[in-house]
Amino acid sequence: MNELKEVTEPTKDVFVKIAVSNWELQNTRLNGLLDKLTDEQLNAQVAPGRNRGVYLLGHLTAVSDAMLPLLGLGEKLFPELEDLFVRNADNFSVHYPTAAELRSKWIEVNALLSARFAAMDADEWFAKHASISEEDFAREPHRNKLNILVNRMAHQAYHLGQLIFLK
Amino acid sequence: MNELKEVTEPTKDVFVKIAVSNWELQNTRLNGLLDKLTDEQLNAQVAPGRNRGVYLLGHLTAVSDAMLPLLGLGEKLFPELEDLFVRNADNFSVHYPTAAELRSKWIEVNALLSARFAAMDADEWFAKHASISEEDFAREPHRNKLNILVNRMAHQAYHLGQLIFLK
Repeated sequence: MNELKEVTEPTKDVFVKIAVSNWELQNTRLNGLLDKLTDEQLNAQVAPGRNRGVYLLGHLTAVSDAMLPLLGLGEKLFPELEDLFVRNADNFSVHYPTAAELRSKWIEVNALLSARFAAMDADEWFAKHASISEEDFAREPHRNKLNILVNRMAHQAYHLGQLIFLK
Repeated sequence: MNELKEVTEPTKDVFVKIAVSNWELQNTRLNGLLDKLTDEQLNAQVAPGRNRGVYLLGHLTAVSDAMLPLLGLGEKLFPELEDLFVRNADNFSVHYPTAAELRSKWIEVNALLSARFAAMDADEWFAKHASISEEDFAREPHRNKLNILVNRMAHQAYHLGQLIFLK
């Protein structure tokens, strides 16, 4: 087997396709669930004493939004979400955006990510992301942009497993 | 940039490393949780009216076990788990293996998968798995063994998000 022939550009595209298609699968599942849930259901806790659906939706929106700068795809659309939904836990005394507002932000962030992903060349996915040093990346080249996407996909699956309890 | 030089065998290994390291990350998190939970906690439902921890542990063990034949890595260790934990829902009238037995099977399946994964050549991950036809694979080459691993990793994250409620 010719090694250089075997490892061709289409093979590289195949791996990007695996990561992006699994990411889209999580989005499709979460969007399907969101379509079925009323705002009232989304305002409930996913289990007694646990996060509310709206908090988790805000959390996932903030984490997805943060992928824009992390992957070198632009600035965050809603930087104010990080303090509410990433740095701080769900808190009944805090005024959050409404379920309707969060649904809209979620859709906006994901539409932008999808468009940006579609415009990325396979090679770009194998470049370092914004939160790893040149030294660490030289030592651990698998910690690239694609790794961030796979990691965030699992993060989304984790919280989808909780949001499903609102049904 | 020389394309053939850019897309080298180490780059291919990088794809595999992303998938396997994210898989291992989920295992590490789940094992850390299992170490903290008593058998009594594991026998409880993760939320009112939802699956018990033991059922989810059996389910994850069965799904991981099924990766062995799916990825061409051998026969299942515990084929009897599929009927209990994949084909059927949690059922209080069914006699399940104990929490201690399931913990042990979980560890055994994962130790075998880790050993098999470590022995796999990068190229093997890009081959078709056992549940896709030659025709479909020719049309959608991203539906390879690596895709199964990424998909099962997200599945595990999904249920980990539920098992965490037992803490």
